[in-house]
Amino acid sequence: MTALTDADDVRGDFVQSFARGLAVIRCFDADHPRLTLSEVAQRAGITRAAARRFLLTLESLGYVRGTGREFALTPRVLELGFSYLSALSLPEIVQPHLERLSHDVDESVSAAVLDGGDIVYVARVPTRRIMSVGITIGTRFPAYATSMGRVLLAALPVSERDDALAAAVVEPLTDRTVVDRGALSALLEEVAAQGFAITDGELESGVRSVAAPVRGRDGRVVAAVNVSASAARVALDRLREVHLPALLSATAAIEQDLGRVPVR
Amino acid sequence: MTALTDADDVRGDFVQSFARGLAVIRCFDADHPRLTLSEVAQRAGITRAAARRFLLTLESLGYVRGTGREFALTPRVLELGFSYLSALSLPEIVQPHLERLSHDVDESVSAAVLDGGDIVYVARVPTRRIMSVGITIGTRFPAYATSMGRVLLAALPVSERDDALAAAVVEPLTDRTVVDRGALSALLEEVAAQGFAITDGELESGVRSVAAPVRGRDGRVVAAVNVSASAARVALDRLREVHLPALLSATAAIEQDLGRVPVR
Repeated sequence: MTALTDADDVRGDFVQSFARGLAVIRCFDADHPRLTLSEVAQRAGITRAAARRFLLTLESLGYVRGTGREFALTPRVLELGFSYLSALSLPEIVQPHLERLSHDVDESVSAAVLDGGDIVYVARVPTRRIMSVGITIGTRFPAYATSMGRVLLAALPVSERDDALAAAVVEPLTDRTVVDRGALSALLEEVAAQGFAITDGELESGVRSVAAPVRGRDGRVVAAVNVSASAARVALDRLREVHLPALLSATAAIEQDLGRVPVR
Repeated sequence: MTALTDADDVRGDFVQSFARGLAVIRCFDADHPRLTLSEVAQRAGITRAAARRFLLTLESLGYVRGTGREFALTPRVLELGFSYLSALSLPEIVQPHLERLSHDVDESVSAAVLDGGDIVYVARVPTRRIMSVGITIGTRFPAYATSMGRVLLAALPVSERDDALAAAVVEPLTDRTVVDRGALSALLEEVAAQGFAITDGELESGVRSVAAPVRGRDGRVVAAVNVSASAARVALDRLREVHLPALLSATAAIEQDLGRVPVR
């Protein structure tokens, strides 16, 4: 039992115990839904005594439940993640439009934002599974290989766009992934000019997708929305001639809800 | 600047700085997407110096981005919430079944778990908006007034079920909400016996819903799945005769995927 003290354990401006506590939350995942104290200590790289204090703190705040020797996260942890979504306020505005668009084109539609070199899903209306991995809110994919990522990268100032491409680990995810940085840069130019992006099997074979940007009130791109479809069911022509117009009318409606004054 | 120390600020087994750091994350919401240092200090009930350290710690871990005088959460915060969903592993198994069910009945379908007296959504396939509030993963409703809540409460041992009802703040959310604890208790008995629950306008007028339990490998109820519909579009008979059988075949398929050996 440590003596009561009001000082945080601080290195410079870094609160070590806060960072360690967050690492304890992140110990739990699909392969480790229940962990003993020793397992938490090992996975978080902290002492058993520290792991015990963090787990008991999380338990008293309602974020963890202990059963016997094991601990598991509770649904309350979701609220931490949703602090972000709620602060973004975008998902709530976007969701009904995604629902309408998905219903109209009978395909899965999603919205994502850029985080470094990744896109992160913030809203989604799935219809049928076409990707090998399940996509939920919070799922990440490399921006350069996705239609939403290209739309979001294309919206960056050219210098930031180049920095993002230079920092990205560009690798062939399928035999169609564009990996040449010069070619990617030219594609982003084209996407910026035309106002949408189409990818065809670059992230996963047999999946094609069309994406368009959503601009906020100040004209800055705040998110991308896409329609994804199985290549076996939806030809590229159909994606361009049917899905793209529906998508653009959805993003226009979202921008109207976001209070953007149309500039064109 | 505080001296470097390895001791956490601990009261008994409670790590104060960890709890305060989590409170800083929760300062941000739809009404407060961007906060200054002073605003964070005020909302979290901590000093400006402490708020600064927590924000800089979050920034160095990639959970917060500072722009000028203001701070905002980044999409990385979602990963904290998704530690829970990922550990649950249920959503990934459930999702394709919800997609199929939603497609078959052309209505929104969801899965939820019980957390205290609340249900918490863990997976959802929305079709059209029928509720006045948007529902996302993490949304909570009082269990006693919802079909999924009744299914989950009915699955508890009778003593826990009574405790849960006794602890709940039961209030009329519409003019149809059952608020009599004796009547609720009898309803739960009925739900336990029949294996599904139907609610009609008890949470919100004009919305009706049918829910069924999902049992894990050990036979314990791990979640509930529901189909919700507008009362104006879907008669109770139709909910019972068309949607309920589709729902029960979906939950049976989910249980098979969860590896439950059928006992009936």
